[in-house]
Amino acid sequence: MQDSTIVQNYTEQVIQQAINVWAAQNKTVTNFFNKYDDAAYMNEIAPGKNRAIYLLGHLIAVNDGMQQLFMLGERLFPQYDAIFIKAADKTVTDLPSIQTLKEDWEKLNIALADHFGKMTTAEWIGRHASVSEEDFAKEPLRNKLNVLFSRTNHQSYHMGQLNLMPV
Amino acid sequence: MQDSTIVQNYTEQVIQQAINVWAAQNKTVTNFFNKYDDAAYMNEIAPGKNRAIYLLGHLIAVNDGMQQLFMLGERLFPQYDAIFIKAADKTVTDLPSIQTLKEDWEKLNIALADHFGKMTTAEWIGRHASVSEEDFAKEPLRNKLNVLFSRTNHQSYHMGQLNLMPV
Repeated sequence: MQDSTIVQNYTEQVIQQAINVWAAQNKTVTNFFNKYDDAAYMNEIAPGKNRAIYLLGHLIAVNDGMQQLFMLGERLFPQYDAIFIKAADKTVTDLPSIQTLKEDWEKLNIALADHFGKMTTAEWIGRHASVSEEDFAKEPLRNKLNVLFSRTNHQSYHMGQLNLMPV
Repeated sequence: MQDSTIVQNYTEQVIQQAINVWAAQNKTVTNFFNKYDDAAYMNEIAPGKNRAIYLLGHLIAVNDGMQQLFMLGERLFPQYDAIFIKAADKTVTDLPSIQTLKEDWEKLNIALADHFGKMTTAEWIGRHASVSEEDFAKEPLRNKLNVLFSRTNHQSYHMGQLNLMPV
């Protein structure tokens, strides 16, 4: 029979592992956007597909959404939803520069890492803002951790695409 | 103060969530390979890049490796390492057919789902076969769950690429 302290440590550890995986994915994206000259990121990842610059903005917008979903406060870049989620690439002509996006990506990652470092186990396994208390009682897996899993996979998904970019 | 049963349930729940995310990713790959005529999967995902058929074989080979890493028994398709991991696409001329690979993908997923359904929390947080007991004592996050996270992200990574395939 394990005592509750040891078991509690496992829960925290498992959540920490998920955060570590998220952070490692973040780092991979950061390294990719620090690897080439700014102009390279105007390339499409494949003919007729999204440009790398668009995918960076898209990742910022989607990840920034976690601040609202996790009830952590105001989003840093709510204005990016319109151009990087609702609008397809190449339909908006005045995108922020790659330099601005790289800076925003860093600001967001610092803010999220700070939040994630302070969140308790109870918060991680608690509901996120898009699920009501009533629905959460019926579907307790719709918690914040599930959103983190989903966002981590989303990032890997686009990282696979970014690595196809011709340079 | 939570009692140990509740805390234990959270640990199991969090691991179950990770397995669910894995299973959902699996389903996405399965749906992709059931969506088009067999011939479509001979297409490159982008000019000069891997073909879809190669990526399916690659995912089978990498995922099959979990059976050995998790000490679950013999791998189902050890012969795929040579052609789908060690060899680059288009360097091996006699690949299995897409139909064979789709069947093997299903067989592997059934075997893995069966194993994952039986694995205990203690097993998930225990070391995998590539880390020694000595190293694991120093780095306890190098557990089986970490491999599952990694393989889930690996699958998302290639799923992002597969979705670029021209059809």
